[in-house]
Amino acid sequence: MKLVRYGALGQEKPGLIDKSGQLRDLSAHVKDLSGEAYSPASLSKLTALDPATLPAVSGSPRIGAPVTGISKFVAIGLNYVDHAKETGAQIPTEPIFFLKANTALSGPNDPVEKPRDSIKLDWEVEIAAIIGTRAKYVSEADALNHVAGYCVCNDVSERNFQLERLGQWTKGKSHDTFGPLGPWLVTKDEIPDVQKLSLWLDVNGKRRQTGSTSTMIFSMAKCIAYVSRFLTLLPGDVITTGTPPGVGAGMKPPQFLNVGDVVTLGIEGLGEQRQQIIEA
Amino acid sequence: MKLVRYGALGQEKPGLIDKSGQLRDLSAHVKDLSGEAYSPASLSKLTALDPATLPAVSGSPRIGAPVTGISKFVAIGLNYVDHAKETGAQIPTEPIFFLKANTALSGPNDPVEKPRDSIKLDWEVEIAAIIGTRAKYVSEADALNHVAGYCVCNDVSERNFQLERLGQWTKGKSHDTFGPLGPWLVTKDEIPDVQKLSLWLDVNGKRRQTGSTSTMIFSMAKCIAYVSRFLTLLPGDVITTGTPPGVGAGMKPPQFLNVGDVVTLGIEGLGEQRQQIIEA
Repeated sequence: MKLVRYGALGQEKPGLIDKSGQLRDLSAHVKDLSGEAYSPASLSKLTALDPATLPAVSGSPRIGAPVTGISKFVAIGLNYVDHAKETGAQIPTEPIFFLKANTALSGPNDPVEKPRDSIKLDWEVEIAAIIGTRAKYVSEADALNHVAGYCVCNDVSERNFQLERLGQWTKGKSHDTFGPLGPWLVTKDEIPDVQKLSLWLDVNGKRRQTGSTSTMIFSMAKCIAYVSRFLTLLPGDVITTGTPPGVGAGMKPPQFLNVGDVVTLGIEGLGEQRQQIIEA
Repeated sequence: MKLVRYGALGQEKPGLIDKSGQLRDLSAHVKDLSGEAYSPASLSKLTALDPATLPAVSGSPRIGAPVTGISKFVAIGLNYVDHAKETGAQIPTEPIFFLKANTALSGPNDPVEKPRDSIKLDWEVEIAAIIGTRAKYVSEADALNHVAGYCVCNDVSERNFQLERLGQWTKGKSHDTFGPLGPWLVTKDEIPDVQKLSLWLDVNGKRRQTGSTSTMIFSMAKCIAYVSRFLTLLPGDVITTGTPPGVGAGMKPPQFLNVGDVVTLGIEGLGEQRQQIIEA
């Protein structure tokens, strides 16, 4: 099942994409796709619906992030061997994580703001999990049982803010629009193996990142289990799991995003995003 | 005005403390003390009430954190000269900040969990602001206009997780119960000068921290203005502003908290907290 929030920013309605690609409205069955909508009980209820009975939505409305009202937006750093190498960092021996501000959450095709004073605006295609049930001290074997589904995330980053303005990466990861998510959440049952998905990202039509979740240093399950030892994940929480090689900071010479640039990205089975860079 | 949330965890009701120290119920006037309750319009409405007309609450109910449903919990690091020195860090030339997980928010007198594997559990008395109106790119001169009020915060920290487990301080700042807040929010009008308040913290009755907000490197206004250049603060958001000297990690030899220890702390005009350490 592909779950989606559609409509103007702040007024999104819940919907699903049926097998023909038609957007259908779920407002009669769930108020919004906030945390509890992704609980196993709620997903069972939605799965039992016959999509053909749901109102078809006409036109091409804006798509929002597929979850709202989250308690946290966790991000794993340096989780692909080749990306760690391109940044000059050592291969981590345990997962590195940080928090992006929840206010960074953005629709998959919404413009991305270039902050004032930004000089090193960069891109990162990533696969994110959305949590379905509370996770605290969960084992690696049990971790994916706490996941509702997966989606594409662009972990937009300002490298000067992140790395050259008195550390703590949050500073470069949290501006409004720095977390495009979606276009939809694909429920876990439709992804046979989350560690065998290809990822790609283009800037102005030129391929910059290609990778596969098979080269993650720490698997999705390992990341979730690890994070759950340090904080409690709640339904709806987003955990994005690091980027493959090809970010702007790793290019020789480095290249960064400017106003007007267009970033497109996608993950096998999870859909595509498109963002234009605008001034903050 | 002193605003408070009282009752069992997850079932808190809004209240206020009147001039005699009596807890009175606000349920008829505000649903809960989440972000919008701290907007100027809401605070004006509550200020206009005659406390004597509000139902007195009998007994000594549990006190919760004075805000709920927040979008973020920002923390400034190394913001007192003497604390920066005791940690061996350089004096920052601009504010360092990170995010604590929202799930770390806790009542002022609730037990604090010692996480599994914790070996360096530490304390940090801090003054926190709660935001009243959205703040993005606000000036230092305007910053305090975006504040609803102030409260005591214990920025509980696990130094091994924070500093010795592959960086990003969030890892040692985000466990459940690592953010005791309260006992109440004191509205801004009752604090003539937020940069002239004394802070203290005891462990098992022994004084460990004493300080004054007059020795902050970056003032409350400067911190809020600075953070608002990197993320957007929303009503209800918490921003805690660093700790004076006397943390366990800075003692010679270092001392840390164990199960059964009791931490008490307070700030002039903002009340006191008491936490016992328990196993996670």
